[in-house]
Amino acid sequence: MMRRTVILGSTGSIGVNTLEVIKMLGQQVEVLGLSTNREVARLAVQAKEHKPQAVAVADDSVSDEPLRALGDSCPQVYRGASGLVRLAQTPAADLIVNALVGASGIEPTLAAIAAGKDVAIANKESLVSAGEVIVGEARRRGVELIPVDSEHSAIHQCIRGESGGGIKRIILTASGGPFLDTPASEMAGVRALEALKHPTWDMGEKVTIDSATLLNKGFEVIEAHWLFGIDADRIDVLVERKSIVHSLVEFLDGSVMALLSVPDMRLSIQYALVYPERVETGLPKLNLKNLGGIDFEEPDRKKFPCLDLAFQAVRRGGTTPAVLSAADEVAVRSFLDGVIGFSDIFPILRDVVEAHEPRPSDTLEAVKEADRWAREEARGRIGRAGGQDR
Amino acid sequence: MMRRTVILGSTGSIGVNTLEVIKMLGQQVEVLGLSTNREVARLAVQAKEHKPQAVAVADDSVSDEPLRALGDSCPQVYRGASGLVRLAQTPAADLIVNALVGASGIEPTLAAIAAGKDVAIANKESLVSAGEVIVGEARRRGVELIPVDSEHSAIHQCIRGESGGGIKRIILTASGGPFLDTPASEMAGVRALEALKHPTWDMGEKVTIDSATLLNKGFEVIEAHWLFGIDADRIDVLVERKSIVHSLVEFLDGSVMALLSVPDMRLSIQYALVYPERVETGLPKLNLKNLGGIDFEEPDRKKFPCLDLAFQAVRRGGTTPAVLSAADEVAVRSFLDGVIGFSDIFPILRDVVEAHEPRPSDTLEAVKEADRWAREEARGRIGRAGGQDR
Repeated sequence: MMRRTVILGSTGSIGVNTLEVIKMLGQQVEVLGLSTNREVARLAVQAKEHKPQAVAVADDSVSDEPLRALGDSCPQVYRGASGLVRLAQTPAADLIVNALVGASGIEPTLAAIAAGKDVAIANKESLVSAGEVIVGEARRRGVELIPVDSEHSAIHQCIRGESGGGIKRIILTASGGPFLDTPASEMAGVRALEALKHPTWDMGEKVTIDSATLLNKGFEVIEAHWLFGIDADRIDVLVERKSIVHSLVEFLDGSVMALLSVPDMRLSIQYALVYPERVETGLPKLNLKNLGGIDFEEPDRKKFPCLDLAFQAVRRGGTTPAVLSAADEVAVRSFLDGVIGFSDIFPILRDVVEAHEPRPSDTLEAVKEADRWAREEARGRIGRAGGQDR
Repeated sequence: MMRRTVILGSTGSIGVNTLEVIKMLGQQVEVLGLSTNREVARLAVQAKEHKPQAVAVADDSVSDEPLRALGDSCPQVYRGASGLVRLAQTPAADLIVNALVGASGIEPTLAAIAAGKDVAIANKESLVSAGEVIVGEARRRGVELIPVDSEHSAIHQCIRGESGGGIKRIILTASGGPFLDTPASEMAGVRALEALKHPTWDMGEKVTIDSATLLNKGFEVIEAHWLFGIDADRIDVLVERKSIVHSLVEFLDGSVMALLSVPDMRLSIQYALVYPERVETGLPKLNLKNLGGIDFEEPDRKKFPCLDLAFQAVRRGGTTPAVLSAADEVAVRSFLDGVIGFSDIFPILRDVVEAHEPRPSDTLEAVKEADRWAREEARGRIGRAGGQDR
């Protein structure tokens, strides 16, 4: 089977890994489109190698000169948010890989679904903020949403061939992030550089900070809720320090299925690219004889209050998860910029969530409105918290 | 879905557990038939409770008085090997649970398949000795063979919804048996009572001794080969001391799927009874937080040479596995009777296997002939070994 794909966000961490996997897969995947937000030079290098028909540069303010320099081999260049949407609807494509970071990834997902394309989904906001809209639309159009995240990929694999009615609960595993063993009293003083050191995964900045607060795991709970149609009450989180067990599913009869592999995001990317097939490439294999003891622990919900905040958000429902997600984008940016401290992130998010009156989240407009409101609200609170702390 | 079942071998360890599960399942399973080899009193108690239409007593020499004593509620009583075959073909049954011990279980499996019934298969010899005949026949008749053994059940669950072409290898787990940490030098002096103490599973005598020699694991390799159509070269064995991971499947892409649960055979029995559904009963649940470190180790193939003997048998092919299985039935009986020592088992089996000239194993006759030959050959060698040692 030959897959024709478009990779949205090809210059980010997941995008780069996706292109690496595509190289390993050889003739099995054809790249029809690539996109970047601002890294045009990198996009030009990718375009030279993968020869897509079209590329998109999302940020209107950057020059596309490096692409023009490709001369005759310069692909069609689309610009801005509408360029991403256009790329997501590339007529000849059958799979859109959405590796965009942030809420700007939602519309391209929706556009791809509307055009009847399967989506390999790495953009968290598409599910965290707009899960109701996107899963509903995917069902109506009969397209597949294949998760790229290792946890959701693990669950997708564990429930293949099972009927949804047989699932008792989903157990998302967490590496625990860099502060798993940091005393609670030292959490306030954590700096961006420490928070960016993830013990087992090498990822983008935003998701690495979200991993340090465990909010990333909370977002994954919300994503799993939408992807697999399971109530948050039936989704648990356990820490597995080695990042070898990527998640588990407990069935009604007491059987527990687990998906293990080396922690390498290329595995779940490849799974999404060739699903429902499985293909052998040069990806590293797990040596079962050198595991050194697999164990599961409860996460410390007091030290990482953002985890429960995500559960609260999905329980309050409607636009609440969109608000949490948008407020977090603002808060993490401020933390990375040194404006607020690590332990300021939670109270800001909590206050924004508490100040929000949930609305139904069944339209993109409602989601976007909640997103706008939350960013403004978060910025206001950060101004005050930043003023207090420094 | 209501399942109508016959349980062949209902008074043995797996049979008793099957009836216990059926009780937990309530109205979902109806028992149409039960059988015993010689335990007629126990069978009568079971018949009184489960009210089958018919029962079979396989051993012609025992009295069926306890059944007659049931008076008006006495079911139809079939006798001998033909009685088992008749029960296996009960017209109204849709699932035959074959929990018979030994080679006498082969013909009832074949009879059930010929009558178009799915078989929940716990009888090892049906696959170890007659795998080629039985799997071929099941394919022709379009019936399902659902494994009852926890290891094969685990694999069955892991590969649900996968295409066979995606499987790289199967990893059968072994608890390691009671002598995992016994120094090799002390193995010769092992007595039946020690060999019967299995660390994690409570099973019948024969399979417990086979677990102590690891030949049971070797037989499971042969069963997996037939059940899942995988070469023995792609089947590995790893020791997992806690008997929580019941087996694993490695896919081409490097993902490894594992099935975990408490070590309780009722789980895989229930899986086979209600497949493809999953049902919640009162079976004990695994607490993932109290595992104490899951690890996998290579089995000691020098200390447990019977394991490799099974691999050799399946590689030599044809009737060789049937010969190994039959010789082992004789050798284990002699060990339990105190006629030979624990460390006599392997050389006897090895010599019988080496003396055998493999024949094609595609007919039941060929399998039976190999079985007869192996028993005689083993008895001859045991006479000599027993004479030497004691």
